[in-house]
Amino acid sequence: MSKNKKVNAAILIIGNEILSGRTQDTNTSTIAIWLNNIGVKVSEVRVIPDIEALIVDTVNHLREKNDYVFTTGGIGPTHDDITAQSVSKAFNLKYEIHKQAFKILEAYYKPGEFNEGRQKMVWMPKNAKLILNPTSGAPGFSVENVFCLPGVPSILKSMLGDLTNIIVGGEPILSKTISLRTVESEIAKSLTDVQNNNKDVEIGSYPFFQAGKLGVSIVIRSEKQSKINNCSDQILNFVKEMQIEVVER
Amino acid sequence: MSKNKKVNAAILIIGNEILSGRTQDTNTSTIAIWLNNIGVKVSEVRVIPDIEALIVDTVNHLREKNDYVFTTGGIGPTHDDITAQSVSKAFNLKYEIHKQAFKILEAYYKPGEFNEGRQKMVWMPKNAKLILNPTSGAPGFSVENVFCLPGVPSILKSMLGDLTNIIVGGEPILSKTISLRTVESEIAKSLTDVQNNNKDVEIGSYPFFQAGKLGVSIVIRSEKQSKINNCSDQILNFVKEMQIEVVER
Repeated sequence: MSKNKKVNAAILIIGNEILSGRTQDTNTSTIAIWLNNIGVKVSEVRVIPDIEALIVDTVNHLREKNDYVFTTGGIGPTHDDITAQSVSKAFNLKYEIHKQAFKILEAYYKPGEFNEGRQKMVWMPKNAKLILNPTSGAPGFSVENVFCLPGVPSILKSMLGDLTNIIVGGEPILSKTISLRTVESEIAKSLTDVQNNNKDVEIGSYPFFQAGKLGVSIVIRSEKQSKINNCSDQILNFVKEMQIEVVER
Repeated sequence: MSKNKKVNAAILIIGNEILSGRTQDTNTSTIAIWLNNIGVKVSEVRVIPDIEALIVDTVNHLREKNDYVFTTGGIGPTHDDITAQSVSKAFNLKYEIHKQAFKILEAYYKPGEFNEGRQKMVWMPKNAKLILNPTSGAPGFSVENVFCLPGVPSILKSMLGDLTNIIVGGEPILSKTISLRTVESEIAKSLTDVQNNNKDVEIGSYPFFQAGKLGVSIVIRSEKQSKINNCSDQILNFVKEMQIEVVER
């Protein structure tokens, strides 16, 4: 892919524990920040339950619409871990023992410890490529543009390094944040003018509370530093005119 | 709705700041836990960018498939707040000044402070019902089964109380967690047997790390306490046989 092409990805979080509110997802922001740095923009995130037909349909929908799909969760040893079998069905591939994964886990565990539960983790779509796991042995896997990662955040994080050279991004998405001691409604009109003058730059406005004081962070995002600088100058101009304080965050 | 009916909801998080990884979403778990307590199960969550056509399509898809839809984000005063206009389009309703909302904000602000930016927040779909905001004045709104809430977590939380008597749930979804000093692969087979014997109960298995030790939390969920107890007994039976320690979390 050329560096000028925009590259996008979807994140698919698989797990009842996120939908029940029991577990706070943090993998979305981990993956999104990592992807941003390698020039891939996250176009959407979905969270769905551990239901095979839903996983199959959603994987197939997202992989058509995006350059990459990253799934998290459902690749462990228990009955509710059904991502690998579902992805096999999505691609119409045999769900079978992955020989390389088997060897990795056989060597990882002590003799006699590589039991039936653990062996479930080496069942994958036929010819899946492995994503190595430096934390706990059991690898993730990819098929075409779908990359299946575990749900445990610390393990997931440790596996992204193996992928950084495989994912081909476009230009990195750069950003600049300007934090102001004001409220959104004071600057809404001036900010709209800047956005209208810079239609190909993404300008977001986010209120914050810090040390008991209100503020607004303006986030400017673009692949081009010059466009960010241009927007930033225009924002700092009206900020100065309106005598609004710029703050560190 | 009868108390025996299963009631489901989708959560739609609107905002580039979540997709870029800049902001960690916490509204999903806040809304999910609140809904669970009033007998509504979250069937899916989607995060999408601030793009009108996408918001329109996604709202229309989700409101057909779910008893309720809760959106978060995009109802503030700035140019990137486009939820109200998008929901108007989704329902083919006029986007106009909501008189009651106008009166609320006119009274909320000091004379002269109810400026153009703030007035944007009273533009809503025609005949929208207001969701009162005890924190910062500007109300959310609902149209039919779609409820639009702000993105700022503390404000969102303060507005759920106003909705608790409006949302009609089914039986509350009960849960029990059993935490064990073991690893998933040790109990995977026994847990699968319990799941197979109790197909209408949702049993999840979640590894954890606490104070440097590994463990597994088993979460049993059902509308019926008797079914939870039944499952719990079966799990505690094999746990005892296998001499696995039950731990407090």
